[in-house]
Amino acid sequence: MTGEDRPVYPTALGASSLESITLLGTDLARDVMGQVGFGELAFWLATQRRPSRGETRVFEAVLAALADHGFTPTAIVTRLTWLSAPDSVQGALAAGLLGGGSRFLGVTEDCGRFLHDVLTSVEGGLPTDDAGWDALALETVTAQRAARRFVPGLGHHVHKQGDPRTPRLFQIAAEEGLSGPHLSLFAAIGRAHPQVLGRTLPLNGAGVCGAALADLGLPLELLRGFALLARTAGLIGQLAEELRHPVADEVFLSVDLNNRSVAPDPYVPDPLPAPDPAP
Amino acid sequence: MTGEDRPVYPTALGASSLESITLLGTDLARDVMGQVGFGELAFWLATQRRPSRGETRVFEAVLAALADHGFTPTAIVTRLTWLSAPDSVQGALAAGLLGGGSRFLGVTEDCGRFLHDVLTSVEGGLPTDDAGWDALALETVTAQRAARRFVPGLGHHVHKQGDPRTPRLFQIAAEEGLSGPHLSLFAAIGRAHPQVLGRTLPLNGAGVCGAALADLGLPLELLRGFALLARTAGLIGQLAEELRHPVADEVFLSVDLNNRSVAPDPYVPDPLPAPDPAP
Amino acid sequence: MTGEDRPVYPTALGASSLESITLLGTDLARDVMGQVGFGELAFWLATQRRPSRGETRVFEAVLAALADHGFTPTAIVTRLTWLSAPDSVQGALAAGLLGGGSRFLGVTEDCGRFLHDVLTSVEGGLPTDDAGWDALALETVTAQRAARRFVPGLGHHVHKQGDPRTPRLFQIAAEEGLSGPHLSLFAAIGRAHPQVLGRTLPLNGAGVCGAALADLGLPLELLRGFALLARTAGLIGQLAEELRHPVADEVFLSVDLNNRSVAPDPYVPDPLPAPDPAP
Amino acid sequence: MTGEDRPVYPTALGASSLESITLLGTDLARDVMGQVGFGELAFWLATQRRPSRGETRVFEAVLAALADHGFTPTAIVTRLTWLSAPDSVQGALAAGLLGGGSRFLGVTEDCGRFLHDVLTSVEGGLPTDDAGWDALALETVTAQRAARRFVPGLGHHVHKQGDPRTPRLFQIAAEEGLSGPHLSLFAAIGRAHPQVLGRTLPLNGAGVCGAALADLGLPLELLRGFALLARTAGLIGQLAEELRHPVADEVFLSVDLNNRSVAPDPYVPDPLPAPDPAP
Repeated sequence: MTGEDRPVYPTALGASSLESITLLGTDLARDVMGQVGFGELAFWLATQRRPSRGETRVFEAVLAALADHGFTPTAIVTRLTWLSAPDSVQGALAAGLLGGGSRFLGVTEDCGRFLHDVLTSVEGGLPTDDAGWDALALETVTAQRAARRFVPGLGHHVHKQGDPRTPRLFQIAAEEGLSGPHLSLFAAIGRAHPQVLGRTLPLNGAGVCGAALADLGLPLELLRGFALLARTAGLIGQLAEELRHPVADEVFLSVDLNNRSVAPDPYVPDPLPAPDPAP
Repeated sequence: MTGEDRPVYPTALGASSLESITLLGTDLARDVMGQVGFGELAFWLATQRRPSRGETRVFEAVLAALADHGFTPTAIVTRLTWLSAPDSVQGALAAGLLGGGSRFLGVTEDCGRFLHDVLTSVEGGLPTDDAGWDALALETVTAQRAARRFVPGLGHHVHKQGDPRTPRLFQIAAEEGLSGPHLSLFAAIGRAHPQVLGRTLPLNGAGVCGAALADLGLPLELLRGFALLARTAGLIGQLAEELRHPVADEVFLSVDLNNRSVAPDPYVPDPLPAPDPAP
Repeated sequence: MTGEDRPVYPTALGASSLESITLLGTDLARDVMGQVGFGELAFWLATQRRPSRGETRVFEAVLAALADHGFTPTAIVTRLTWLSAPDSVQGALAAGLLGGGSRFLGVTEDCGRFLHDVLTSVEGGLPTDDAGWDALALETVTAQRAARRFVPGLGHHVHKQGDPRTPRLFQIAAEEGLSGPHLSLFAAIGRAHPQVLGRTLPLNGAGVCGAALADLGLPLELLRGFALLARTAGLIGQLAEELRHPVADEVFLSVDLNNRSVAPDPYVPDPLPAPDPAP
Repeated sequence: MTGEDRPVYPTALGASSLESITLLGTDLARDVMGQVGFGELAFWLATQRRPSRGETRVFEAVLAALADHGFTPTAIVTRLTWLSAPDSVQGALAAGLLGGGSRFLGVTEDCGRFLHDVLTSVEGGLPTDDAGWDALALETVTAQRAARRFVPGLGHHVHKQGDPRTPRLFQIAAEEGLSGPHLSLFAAIGRAHPQVLGRTLPLNGAGVCGAALADLGLPLELLRGFALLARTAGLIGQLAEELRHPVADEVFLSVDLNNRSVAPDPYVPDPLPAPDPAP
């Protein structure tokens, strides 16, 4: 509040005056347009610091890994919404993004946060060699198993023998000198888990992306947001394809024409304990 | 799957043939239109059983309690979105509903689920008198406090001496003979909590709505959905008012004109433990 | 703005003080909860006047007619979004509503607006008998045909011999003495169009709903909003059914497993005229 | 449909098998990740052809120009929705994008489409020099004025003496040899309109972005989509700033605490002509 008791809203993002536009304290027209790539800009907007060339490369590799996975629920939803409301591209994209929750796009954030929680709770300092990381990973997977919880980033329903994105992202991060503790722990989980779980699961692409984003120092609360940014580009691709090679109407009809009308099944809530008249 | 290995999708909801339309196994035109109120229909759709007159009255009282709370974030969001995209009423309503999450509209669901969890875990049968309910409530509030968790439905930032919706909904449910275990426990929490917390908080309207919906036997997973249904009516009211007495542009300008451009503040992630070279 | 140059936002909707909550100038707890049905309240919120019993009955008949039409794109979208992001009921409902655009839910609004535009442009007063309405309808359909535009509300892809909702809504409106000029013109279009179009099309349910809402004096800009309100109840029904008898995963897989990877088809924009060097 | 009458859904986008993932016919891990920038990828997804380095630069300049404009309604909406539902980043981003309609983000698409419509209707070939473009622009602005329609892309409420993004984007497109007919016509409109309108308006940034995107050969139906992609990055920036320097609660309170409760104002629809008993 100012002296006049009016709220004032500070921001370092876009600002404009009669003659100029700044973004993050930089002259938008002169120093951003034509100079800054879109991935670089997205990183900059999220952290208010301009990333290095290597950070941008890792970040854009993550975005590429997450941009489109074919006919996911989010892609189908965007196409169906456009079919139903062709006047609103924003509605079709928004509807698709709303599927970016815990199940389909959330693994990236879950994995980054999980690794981070493990790392911050390490006592006595982080490991400095593979043996140390393996020991930490073993302890981590064992604790998850004891608590009957999944290890985020472990397992894939298609790429059962290995998700090709995972070694590639490790490689790119290493090339850029940006393989940090989150990726180290994630890799060690890949080595250590069979000993605990009794079978070998792949480290999936969504998980390694979360580890890489966490190593880049991006805000953990927004890791899902980067998956959604990547997916926005993918969903535009889905709409562009739908524009020329439509499938949404056939998807809709394949459901609607195969519906089978059944009798109502009245809902009965879970039973509660019976009253106990003699306390 | 059928013999031909095609999926078939069963549903008891809307179905139509060349000559008729059924909804929940009932002839829509003849037996629903003109015969079934909208609240009654919403209940029926959610449970696949037609509610009694009393159930409908309690349900509609809940919807009334939650329909509009003035300039909440959801109302502001709907108005601003319509300002920005006046061509899409569906976008404005959807944007408003997206604020119906854990903080502003979630209490109803949280409270209903919380009470249900307590009730299902009672051993030896539910209480049959106020003394029994008070004992259960005391135990419940004590356990929440020990776990440093809030009791959902307790407290209100405005109605510090009592939310007028709460006694009214208790009364309506009692009039209809629909005051069940969830409402009984919620009332007892209202009586018992000062003994544990050392101060008296009101039972809020969102909470009592959750208790009442749970006593009506509605699906707990969708209690938030009913709050959103109520709010949809409220948001249409907000748009109808915005149409004739607009405020969104002034809200927007009150923020935009009071922005203050500040220098970027580079994000620094939480520190991790230092590497420990000597394991 | 007040004297202190601070914006003030007037509203007649929800307001609360320490001790009371009002809605539309009425005591919410005492005079709305338990007294006002949900359809009635929605009408009141949208018009800031309490509807009569007959108005409420017609309005609720419209909402019933539009609540659920089975496996429409909006229903499929809501189910798929919940599959993908089960943590967010609000996201699933919002995604479904976003399909409420020009094609699937827009007919109600389009028809109400179209009829209204015709009526307001009539010169010399509205007709007072069927012959007069028929003449106006004939003129209207002829003009639409000449402009190669559809008549909103005419035709249905399933109910080719008549949509059962249409005569029923005419009947209910007549019973309540609420059959006004919009319904009269719509009925006349049903009688007159074969003479112009050379074939008989049914008056569809979405269209008659738009006519009835317009006759109720509801804001034309928000007619789509009422269709969305009705649909919100239907989408909750879809989620409630999905909760116990899920189909979304099978819908998703029926698309994903039947995808066929094809080569990219580079987009080529529409050609422009060639440059003309000799103007 | 196949011989077995099952639908098959062709796509050139993401596809995966047990061992590989392809995107647009390319090996995702090997040939996209680490090799393709995010702007480049978004272009590729939308057109199914890989853009040249120059095309990517122009495209990314457009995205930079549109990413964030400070406290726009979309930014406020995203922050308020996150305040209200902090559990759903996807909901906050989707809500913000829903403001990307005709008024705030639509100019880009409107301008691109408008220019394209003019160009395709030119008879006798496109101009080859400035004089030719000026003549076409003069004719275009004159026709719009006669039809009482705005010229999309002309005018700005802040940058009244020139939007700094406009000359910069012309420059970048020229540097890359990608200044095509849409940009040429848009520039000519900037020169010719004062003669018709009697005053000089700036060519705005949203408009020049639409012209540049159209010259890049991107699908006109999706130009709004690229503005939304840019804005997604901006909205993540808004959330990242809100995370550390929150303003949403104060925005909400500045409205809610300055509400003024007024009496209901019953809605009265537009009057219709009176009935005319003597036709």
